[in-house]
Amino acid sequence: MYLDSLICSRLDRAGLQDLVDGGVRCATVTCGFWEDATESMDSLVTWHRLIADNADLAGLGTSPAQIEAIAAQGRVAIILGFQNSAFLQGRLGYVEMFHRMGVRVAQLTYNIQNDIGGSCYDPEDAGLTRFGEEVVGEMNRVGMVVDLSHVGNRTSFEAIQASSRPVAVTHANCSDLVDHPRNKPAYILKELAARGGMVGLTTYHNITRGYNGSPDEWATMVARTAELIGAENIGIGTDDNQGGDAAYLAWMRKGRWSFRTQQGASVGPGLATATKTEWYRGPGDFHVFGPALRRVGFSEGETADILWGNWNRYYKEVM
Amino acid sequence: MYLDSLICSRLDRAGLQDLVDGGVRCATVTCGFWEDATESMDSLVTWHRLIADNADLAGLGTSPAQIEAIAAQGRVAIILGFQNSAFLQGRLGYVEMFHRMGVRVAQLTYNIQNDIGGSCYDPEDAGLTRFGEEVVGEMNRVGMVVDLSHVGNRTSFEAIQASSRPVAVTHANCSDLVDHPRNKPAYILKELAARGGMVGLTTYHNITRGYNGSPDEWATMVARTAELIGAENIGIGTDDNQGGDAAYLAWMRKGRWSFRTQQGASVGPGLATATKTEWYRGPGDFHVFGPALRRVGFSEGETADILWGNWNRYYKEVM
Repeated sequence: MYLDSLICSRLDRAGLQDLVDGGVRCATVTCGFWEDATESMDSLVTWHRLIADNADLAGLGTSPAQIEAIAAQGRVAIILGFQNSAFLQGRLGYVEMFHRMGVRVAQLTYNIQNDIGGSCYDPEDAGLTRFGEEVVGEMNRVGMVVDLSHVGNRTSFEAIQASSRPVAVTHANCSDLVDHPRNKPAYILKELAARGGMVGLTTYHNITRGYNGSPDEWATMVARTAELIGAENIGIGTDDNQGGDAAYLAWMRKGRWSFRTQQGASVGPGLATATKTEWYRGPGDFHVFGPALRRVGFSEGETADILWGNWNRYYKEVM
Repeated sequence: MYLDSLICSRLDRAGLQDLVDGGVRCATVTCGFWEDATESMDSLVTWHRLIADNADLAGLGTSPAQIEAIAAQGRVAIILGFQNSAFLQGRLGYVEMFHRMGVRVAQLTYNIQNDIGGSCYDPEDAGLTRFGEEVVGEMNRVGMVVDLSHVGNRTSFEAIQASSRPVAVTHANCSDLVDHPRNKPAYILKELAARGGMVGLTTYHNITRGYNGSPDEWATMVARTAELIGAENIGIGTDDNQGGDAAYLAWMRKGRWSFRTQQGASVGPGLATATKTEWYRGPGDFHVFGPALRRVGFSEGETADILWGNWNRYYKEVM
């Protein structure tokens, strides 16, 4: 039973079928990046309808009990998430409103500083703002996962401190192993893990350099991360993009904040495209993780927990 | 135990206390008139916070079971409603989104024609639009009360026909008894009642002329309405406005659609202010209804049903 803590796929019925066929029984999807409140609601309408129209394949995951029930039925529990907090449109009260609309995961910033904090690509990160502190507190109160994946290091560290519940990095790696602004330094992941937080290690090509030649190389990166923060705080967040075309990538990277080409995770040493690894092309390849994790030394129990149990435990604490 | 099917009060703790002290155990409030989606969400945030901050007095009424439980605790169940469908901002999918945010009552139009239909003050009413049909269907699906109080006669009649669940007029009277555009002709109320719908008869001064000199006069209007449509389809919707000042009245009447003075329910024979009757000044006077209804001949059971039971039965069918 597999759990993917972050995909940015534009799903349709075929995409849901791919998840189910691949054994993925829970996935957090990306409902938006730069969309304001009404645009984000438009997206939620689409996602809710997709799930309702394909109830034989998918269900809405809003609580650990629901997620487990949907998974037990052989369907995929879709957790609604945003990769930015633009949906709040500056309103603290919208945390609860979007929670009521089913949202359970929100990344504090995407690729540009906002009213909450700094992003991982900003040359300066002024830290979690006073509004950001309020937002984290409200997300704690209603039970929404605070996601730090694209968030700047200072803001990330301060958000970990500010949060009364464990926080998450749904899709990034450790920059002590793979140096990239999208990855997190060990000191941040250690602080996160010490408070019960989770990191979903990702297969995304440009932020796994040195560990992306094979499933075993990638599993070695997992093992080294586990040495730093403990296996119990690790899951998998592929950042996979099923079906997203060039226009979608352009929107993701440029939003409305730039008219020029922006490279997102290929900033620095990277490429302008969203290259996948040779061995992880989508949910049909999720089965490669387990055997690779076992080969690099994880026990059967640890492997099952990385594939499902750790996130499940975390969701019980924060949702 | 009293139920008020529509108030437009701007409540604070004192207002909630007045409702509780008056014996009102359930009230549908007005979260907005002309507000677009985000403005409506801002209003919902305020209402949710008011209820949460005063949980000793009030609770959120989103289902008949919850309403009954809150009432049994001696608190007032607040049902969140809108007196217009501007909150949809033209989006069919927002019916479900606002339902998820706790909204259970929506009037199709306020005092001006919109994309759903015609209002009671428009000289021509072109009927329920194709979008309006979709909205009624979606409200039926999610369990939101279709409120026709300020809706034009043709649109009202067509909405009754289009709806698969009984609809409501939360605050109006019968225009065969009190001639005013805000009141509904008997043929509409009969059609609504024949399908299990409800009308909340109102005490609002300008649309109760001839029956507003005393509780017994008003109860006589109720009795005559019951002769037309049956006592089991009648409740009380005072349209009371606790705490609303002149600016609030101006917003209600003019919104952003007019720069001139608009009179709302005082159009025609009325006044420019929101005059209350001498004997119903607010929830502290709700106790006058029961004895007056008994004096004009309603049985004890009928009286209790008009004060509470009929709406409760209706909510069980539609929410």
